[in-house]
Amino acid sequence: MDVEQYMNEVGAAARQASRVVAASSTAARNAALLAARDALDGAREELAQANRQDLERGAANGLDAALMDRLELTPGRIDAMLEGLRQVAALADPVGSIDAMRRMPSGIQVGRMRVPLGVIGIIYESRPNVTVEAASLCLKSGNATILRGGSEALASNLAIARCLEQGLRAAGLPEAAVQVLQTADRAAVGRLISMPEYVDVIVPRGGKGLIERISAEAKVPVIKHLDGVCHVYIDDGADADMALDIAVNAKTQRYGTCNTMETLLVAQSMAPALLPRLAAAYAEAGVELRGCARTRELLPTALEATEQDWHAEYLAPILALRVVDGLDQAIEHIERYSSAHTESIVTADHARAMRFLREVDSSSVMVNASTRFADGFEYGLGAEIGISTDKLHARGPVGLEGLTSQKFVVLGEGQIRA
Amino acid sequence: MDVEQYMNEVGAAARQASRVVAASSTAARNAALLAARDALDGAREELAQANRQDLERGAANGLDAALMDRLELTPGRIDAMLEGLRQVAALADPVGSIDAMRRMPSGIQVGRMRVPLGVIGIIYESRPNVTVEAASLCLKSGNATILRGGSEALASNLAIARCLEQGLRAAGLPEAAVQVLQTADRAAVGRLISMPEYVDVIVPRGGKGLIERISAEAKVPVIKHLDGVCHVYIDDGADADMALDIAVNAKTQRYGTCNTMETLLVAQSMAPALLPRLAAAYAEAGVELRGCARTRELLPTALEATEQDWHAEYLAPILALRVVDGLDQAIEHIERYSSAHTESIVTADHARAMRFLREVDSSSVMVNASTRFADGFEYGLGAEIGISTDKLHARGPVGLEGLTSQKFVVLGEGQIRA
Repeated sequence: MDVEQYMNEVGAAARQASRVVAASSTAARNAALLAARDALDGAREELAQANRQDLERGAANGLDAALMDRLELTPGRIDAMLEGLRQVAALADPVGSIDAMRRMPSGIQVGRMRVPLGVIGIIYESRPNVTVEAASLCLKSGNATILRGGSEALASNLAIARCLEQGLRAAGLPEAAVQVLQTADRAAVGRLISMPEYVDVIVPRGGKGLIERISAEAKVPVIKHLDGVCHVYIDDGADADMALDIAVNAKTQRYGTCNTMETLLVAQSMAPALLPRLAAAYAEAGVELRGCARTRELLPTALEATEQDWHAEYLAPILALRVVDGLDQAIEHIERYSSAHTESIVTADHARAMRFLREVDSSSVMVNASTRFADGFEYGLGAEIGISTDKLHARGPVGLEGLTSQKFVVLGEGQIRA
Repeated sequence: MDVEQYMNEVGAAARQASRVVAASSTAARNAALLAARDALDGAREELAQANRQDLERGAANGLDAALMDRLELTPGRIDAMLEGLRQVAALADPVGSIDAMRRMPSGIQVGRMRVPLGVIGIIYESRPNVTVEAASLCLKSGNATILRGGSEALASNLAIARCLEQGLRAAGLPEAAVQVLQTADRAAVGRLISMPEYVDVIVPRGGKGLIERISAEAKVPVIKHLDGVCHVYIDDGADADMALDIAVNAKTQRYGTCNTMETLLVAQSMAPALLPRLAAAYAEAGVELRGCARTRELLPTALEATEQDWHAEYLAPILALRVVDGLDQAIEHIERYSSAHTESIVTADHARAMRFLREVDSSSVMVNASTRFADGFEYGLGAEIGISTDKLHARGPVGLEGLTSQKFVVLGEGQIRA
């Protein structure tokens, strides 16, 4: 296969389809999502067969257990995909809504209309359910999508793609509105991220290494999600029970998510009474503690934290723990070590809560809440294609709105410029 | 000078200053703007002297008349800079405002707060007044700025920079919040656009060549403004007088601006009666017409338009003119040739007006108004650092809001994730 030529064909088809999808009705896009749902439901046998191919190839290639698990399309996961399509169809359509029309001194009315971004390239690893999730959010928001999943999942992804195409066809929309790349050739990724004439934005989903590589090489804007080194700061005078609840929840409710707390900062005045209680709770949950010198004076059993620990995204039952003088030092620590994903303060003091909100420069900043709330569903976005740690365009959980842009619309009655 | 080391110092100082500016009060930033205004007013002699140096060097280097004109800091231009600073100080501060707090089922309240982007790099050509304009908008929106103007204007820009620093000092803000690069070395630009650790976004202002080069090489997001190939489409059944007014204003009110109409599309049914009137009006204004075959049947004196004319941003008294079958062909033409800046339809038909608004994918889309309105001031943004033809982040005229981002803020009362 001539990858360059193939990618140009895919890109040109996506560009053309994106215009049709952008101008399509909400009803047509919803019909496509629901028809794709029915097609997937009717193709369970084909999906299982394709997935078996991938699993057998994976086993033969010696994929590790975690990867094999992510690759598997269990009946439960297929049910979840169907439910996801139903939910996305039920979301409000952002496209075409106008924020406000304001009359200007010249007499023209000016507002901004939400419009699709155009063509979105999604690059992800081996979970085939991402194919449905990403394609459905992009389609709902009026975009065309080019999907490039991990090569381990190629057969599964192509089987899913056939169902998505059936849905598009049933709704009278172009099949090229959702395209799964038919090649495992790595050169296809290189081309996908460097054809701005066909692709408007790239959303990479996966490990930090993948995302850094794509960001460095892309000639197209990237909505990226790097790591989540999230902090909770327990302020002087905070309610101790609340602090304990939040600190335990933020660490232990799930270990592998990007909004899990990785470093806990405790005001000096709170440490003597609170650290032993925290240590007991973390011990019960099986969380290993790595502390600064002041922490270890109060908790001699804690391991010694090194510089590396303050930078670490453990994604595991390990917590870095530092006693700080107070809010200033907490903000300094966060400024230096945070990945600007999510930070929370537990405090009873209004002025310090406001300072934390204002001065901490992360995509989510919280007062008296667990960092685990940093999530598109919890924020009421209805769905999420990722969590952006960028500052431009979308920041924090990216829902349908983050897959759109706004254009100015002007309504006149013949006005000319004086 | 070791440019790499110098740029690292400038970048690190800007990054540090950006944190102070982001956390500063509106009053402090306004005070800095007004103190800079007074400093410029008191330094008219020094400004004139520095500008004379640039002009003499320019004359010796044989700069052309247009460039020499842009370079000159006349007393009137200095007055305009002072007035600009006063106006920016008077604008509403976007930083810190929260769009809406919504209570979620979990009990947390979620909203989005406007925050500065951080450090903005501005690359521009020889007009020294851009130094004040760009620096003031970035400062007002809570950002630090690194400015790199054309080397022809270096002495003028450094003299202006001293006044801006005085303003910052007077308001207790760090001088590094606004830095004009002290070197004309081109390597400095290369470094400025490739240090994401220090610079969050680049705004290039100038010719298409400059902007394309910077976009291709930047390792930092770019808010860019390429060309303005703007269209007016006169629809079947439009009011002929309104159409004439708009078509003449959009072309002739100013020739050199990016929102000037470059191609006029006329519905076939309107052409026989309207083209002779248009031709007379354009002839009076001295506008050369280049038409399609159908145009030239009705206006034999028009020159023949070639494929190149449909792509042209003339910035001159020249107009490309095409007779189209109707709305569909007009939209097709725009899709193919427009630079996605600004397009306007003149129509009496509501459904076609709505279709045009929805389907034309440009940063500004208008009904019954001159394209010349595509402008930050006319849109009520108060000021404008440029007009973005990108889709991500800012699209269309970019005012203070376009120099900010939004972060999520969460207010809880001890909520944890279930």
